[in-house]
Amino acid sequence: MIIVMKQGAGKEALAEVKKRIRELGYKPHVIHGDTRDVIGAVGDERGKTVLQSLESLPGVESVVPILKPYKLASREIKPEPSSFEIAPGLAIGGDRVVVMAGPCSVESETQIVETALAVKAAGATVLRGGAFKPRTSPYSFQGMEEDGLKLLAKAREASGLPIVTEVVNPGDVELVARYADILQIGARNVQNFALLKTVGRIDKPILLKRGMATTIQEYLMSAEYILAEGNRRVILCERGIRTFETATRNTLDISAVPVLKSLTHLPVTIDPSHATGHAHLVPSMCYAGVAAGADGLIVEVHPCPEKAASDGPQSLRPGEFAAMMAKLREFVKVAGKTL
Amino acid sequence: MIIVMKQGAGKEALAEVKKRIRELGYKPHVIHGDTRDVIGAVGDERGKTVLQSLESLPGVESVVPILKPYKLASREIKPEPSSFEIAPGLAIGGDRVVVMAGPCSVESETQIVETALAVKAAGATVLRGGAFKPRTSPYSFQGMEEDGLKLLAKAREASGLPIVTEVVNPGDVELVARYADILQIGARNVQNFALLKTVGRIDKPILLKRGMATTIQEYLMSAEYILAEGNRRVILCERGIRTFETATRNTLDISAVPVLKSLTHLPVTIDPSHATGHAHLVPSMCYAGVAAGADGLIVEVHPCPEKAASDGPQSLRPGEFAAMMAKLREFVKVAGKTL
Amino acid sequence: MIIVMKQGAGKEALAEVKKRIRELGYKPHVIHGDTRDVIGAVGDERGKTVLQSLESLPGVESVVPILKPYKLASREIKPEPSSFEIAPGLAIGGDRVVVMAGPCSVESETQIVETALAVKAAGATVLRGGAFKPRTSPYSFQGMEEDGLKLLAKAREASGLPIVTEVVNPGDVELVARYADILQIGARNVQNFALLKTVGRIDKPILLKRGMATTIQEYLMSAEYILAEGNRRVILCERGIRTFETATRNTLDISAVPVLKSLTHLPVTIDPSHATGHAHLVPSMCYAGVAAGADGLIVEVHPCPEKAASDGPQSLRPGEFAAMMAKLREFVKVAGKTL
Amino acid sequence: MIIVMKQGAGKEALAEVKKRIRELGYKPHVIHGDTRDVIGAVGDERGKTVLQSLESLPGVESVVPILKPYKLASREIKPEPSSFEIAPGLAIGGDRVVVMAGPCSVESETQIVETALAVKAAGATVLRGGAFKPRTSPYSFQGMEEDGLKLLAKAREASGLPIVTEVVNPGDVELVARYADILQIGARNVQNFALLKTVGRIDKPILLKRGMATTIQEYLMSAEYILAEGNRRVILCERGIRTFETATRNTLDISAVPVLKSLTHLPVTIDPSHATGHAHLVPSMCYAGVAAGADGLIVEVHPCPEKAASDGPQSLRPGEFAAMMAKLREFVKVAGKTL
Repeated sequence: MIIVMKQGAGKEALAEVKKRIRELGYKPHVIHGDTRDVIGAVGDERGKTVLQSLESLPGVESVVPILKPYKLASREIKPEPSSFEIAPGLAIGGDRVVVMAGPCSVESETQIVETALAVKAAGATVLRGGAFKPRTSPYSFQGMEEDGLKLLAKAREASGLPIVTEVVNPGDVELVARYADILQIGARNVQNFALLKTVGRIDKPILLKRGMATTIQEYLMSAEYILAEGNRRVILCERGIRTFETATRNTLDISAVPVLKSLTHLPVTIDPSHATGHAHLVPSMCYAGVAAGADGLIVEVHPCPEKAASDGPQSLRPGEFAAMMAKLREFVKVAGKTL
Repeated sequence: MIIVMKQGAGKEALAEVKKRIRELGYKPHVIHGDTRDVIGAVGDERGKTVLQSLESLPGVESVVPILKPYKLASREIKPEPSSFEIAPGLAIGGDRVVVMAGPCSVESETQIVETALAVKAAGATVLRGGAFKPRTSPYSFQGMEEDGLKLLAKAREASGLPIVTEVVNPGDVELVARYADILQIGARNVQNFALLKTVGRIDKPILLKRGMATTIQEYLMSAEYILAEGNRRVILCERGIRTFETATRNTLDISAVPVLKSLTHLPVTIDPSHATGHAHLVPSMCYAGVAAGADGLIVEVHPCPEKAASDGPQSLRPGEFAAMMAKLREFVKVAGKTL
Repeated sequence: MIIVMKQGAGKEALAEVKKRIRELGYKPHVIHGDTRDVIGAVGDERGKTVLQSLESLPGVESVVPILKPYKLASREIKPEPSSFEIAPGLAIGGDRVVVMAGPCSVESETQIVETALAVKAAGATVLRGGAFKPRTSPYSFQGMEEDGLKLLAKAREASGLPIVTEVVNPGDVELVARYADILQIGARNVQNFALLKTVGRIDKPILLKRGMATTIQEYLMSAEYILAEGNRRVILCERGIRTFETATRNTLDISAVPVLKSLTHLPVTIDPSHATGHAHLVPSMCYAGVAAGADGLIVEVHPCPEKAASDGPQSLRPGEFAAMMAKLREFVKVAGKTL
Repeated sequence: MIIVMKQGAGKEALAEVKKRIRELGYKPHVIHGDTRDVIGAVGDERGKTVLQSLESLPGVESVVPILKPYKLASREIKPEPSSFEIAPGLAIGGDRVVVMAGPCSVESETQIVETALAVKAAGATVLRGGAFKPRTSPYSFQGMEEDGLKLLAKAREASGLPIVTEVVNPGDVELVARYADILQIGARNVQNFALLKTVGRIDKPILLKRGMATTIQEYLMSAEYILAEGNRRVILCERGIRTFETATRNTLDISAVPVLKSLTHLPVTIDPSHATGHAHLVPSMCYAGVAAGADGLIVEVHPCPEKAASDGPQSLRPGEFAAMMAKLREFVKVAGKTL
């Protein structure tokens, strides 16, 4: 932590700050500048945000953090990328690009089973589908809940694909974990710390989506919540951030892929369906994601988007998905990986 | 809902869209333009976001919503402002500006009781204090939990001030409601719909903070979740949105006050402490909030900000708070209200 | 400037960075931390952004600026607020809140003279009106240009109000300065450095609007361009920043007022008309601006907003403006100033 | 344009709006809804933003534009992509991905000639280099101006590469056009309409960068300014937008590539150097850009980034650039194009 003193701050103010730094268990180290003093507080800052409060002392202009606040998620702790199984025989984080595909919401047995078979035929290796839906409106379809989970299990049986589905309430984690192979934490819950702690205690991989206004540092701190509880299988997912631009639903922060890969050992995926909000933009963003180094993709596919209960406009039809996958395979190869 | 057809979309595409609109229970109404057709879908759109999926039909360029998606929160349903008791004899939403003040976190009996007495003496009418703290880092102080609630109760006894405190987990709502007079839903949980539904079923006023990236429309939909469960005592709170500017912690969206007042009958407050992140900016933002028409303020006050367990830099000292309140009283008067 | 080394960076990397710091005329000062080294580069950073390039050296993780990059605009150079005349007998930056009012565009003699008389009667002390209009569309009304300037001069004669009007091209500065009392640089030109340098060389006050995506630091650097050329009469104006929120045209960053007042000695005004984009929101934002400490307001007034050539929806009618001014007067008094 | 009436707006208000619509040359078409009326105003809206002013009429809730405001830039006017020469034998917008590479600033003959030869050897087909530099600080290096243009001309002679360089002042357009093959309008000048009109009158291709806070629609309107003056050779360039994320300098809006390609016939390029601000992120963003369908890339290359006068941290060394180009070639091939 660097403490910047105000221009003209006197010796007493400096002495007071140094004293307080020592009280908090750090070692102060003063640099006398031309116009002001700067103090380095040496010691492990992580978990001690309390240093920030030094800003309230007289003569202090600002407090600038230096160390990254996450540990377990960091490449500094674990330099090599994490690769782990998300289903028997299927690992993420290595040479394989994992494609998770399926409808936004589970709507019926026919819908989910048909979609599962179609996306599998096209090369997807995980089936996605929502049973508990966090919807902006209380009047919108809220998901089939446990009935949806049962249909997902049927689709898994029919297709052999492992399933990923969202959980929104700490009280439902146990239930969802009974059915799902991978539990998803949605963008709106990325700082729902009660939920993060709960999924940190189960033995299933967690797909943690970035929030719409979550900085990369905050995002890794949310991952840290899960890791710190003991669950080391966290998959990151960039799904678009909120900006001023309205041509797309959100703005896919594609550079977050190499940024995250450089900061953390955790696998990084992207969700171009939620990011763009329009099906016609999804294929090119899938290609871009793989070219940028993503370890996986999450893609919405619906047999009949114009009748979808949610997110129709951003869903590919099975035929469009298959065409995208054929082209994707070539980009994946150039990226040095396989589907 | 307005459906805009692509330039050159043929008659069949138009017929298909009209058919689908009728199937969904709306009445299509076509306007033939110079270069393209536009279809109005007449009928109550609320709760039927499924119309959005028409965007997937051939020939459709875009689907533009017209009606506001909230009902119970709307001025159209209830034109006069809602005013309701938040504690015996203390109403919000009327002629009184309610000032809620206190520390970010409850840290000790001395700290909270002293602060309660100080803010009361200065004119605050509600005591705020956090017992369950949503913190970005798992290594930061997470709050005193039930012990903190007990100390809040002691401070209420000592000062006579009702208390507002945050709840972060649906499973804790009952517990928190046993102690608190007002339950706060924090910015990070504004779209934690499981939590919103749960607090919608209790008989206590809810202080619902706007999220950092929540549009005003989404925010009112979150209020609608609580209202729709039966709890009509929802207090809104603008607490800063996330923008590119880093001179302040967030950007206080002061115009949200008159915007909200024009759209909803619910009381609107502001939290300049979290919005700005710096104590020296808080007083002027309190004055601005009242001038803009706010029904209340939430202000962080700590007896010793440089030793605060959280959010020290944005906390006023009791003396600074008292000075601010003295000036505030004058602005409140010009605004035609009382403290 | 603080240079943060990577964890595990060797002694040679450190030596190389120190050498380069010395070559650039700074004094390196190393702090050996627990996990990494940090180097303070002591010396005046301003104008030497080249230090940033140290990030390209091996072993360097990041380069963190400490000093503010502006000088002439800074409170550190000139601690007391600047107050200067913008017209004979009318100073800004002192005890008076200067209200500049008028239409977005000058449209006709009747329109501008009538408006001038009306806003004067209501208490405005400067007339605003656009002759050169920067419009998003090449097909929109682009302003009356020199004819507009002539009409402004007539309105000044008729009302006695000094005039402020925008200049958009360095080649027009001389022309505009012949007519205007104050030259405005619009939000879109805040980093049009050729224009800033040109207005820095004339002897008229400059109203410099903040850009939609300009940080406060960048904004003060733009002011610095004008100041550095010798023109010390720069008036700042917060006019809304671009965010994700669409309920308002832009988001009025009201906390920029006290932030700017603490960093710079220059007068600070706000433009609630452009910020909100809706006339019904303007009065409360005027009150909030004054309560927040603004030295002036810029308000759009049009005799017939529904027929305005530009920005009708955000223009007050003369009667609405007069009503606003009556209430404003009370807020101004509480703020310790006069109109 | 769709005019949405307020709930309960009476017949007179409706009649007034209809009358005004007719006066403005449009045909009103009323849809009577369940709770409110909606009026479609049929006619070509482009260039008639004045309809927006109807929002000021009594009973009007909002005015919603339907048509896109640009014409010449639109795919509706010209469905097939524009491909045009930017130098003899070198076309953009077709099957070739054009790579423009070079230093941020021209610093010396050795620097620019060496870089030109190096980037050419690696496969670049255009040399970039700044002579007039728009810098945030007046104290930063402002470019070598005409001397820089002369050095660029020497580098063109030595390497055979055409050159692209920025112009910042309408008064310099003629000068810059004497040396440059392509003129660049930088992000800060995207709405410098005086400059846009001036370059619209010359016979050289224009590389128009998107601004940091420019929506895609506004961006195309800026292109329209150039096109409307007669210059049809406009190249678009996404270079990162300003968001809350600070891990990168800006956020590369990669989905802008397919969005722009669907809306306009103009060629679309990306600038990953300015977007990310860090050299180590540039290669993956180049790959992603090509995978997303970009027609070209602009990449900063400097022989010695740690000594660069500007933008060192985001510049690739020649060896890094060559390695990137080798990989890029494979992605370009999968994208169905050539370098």
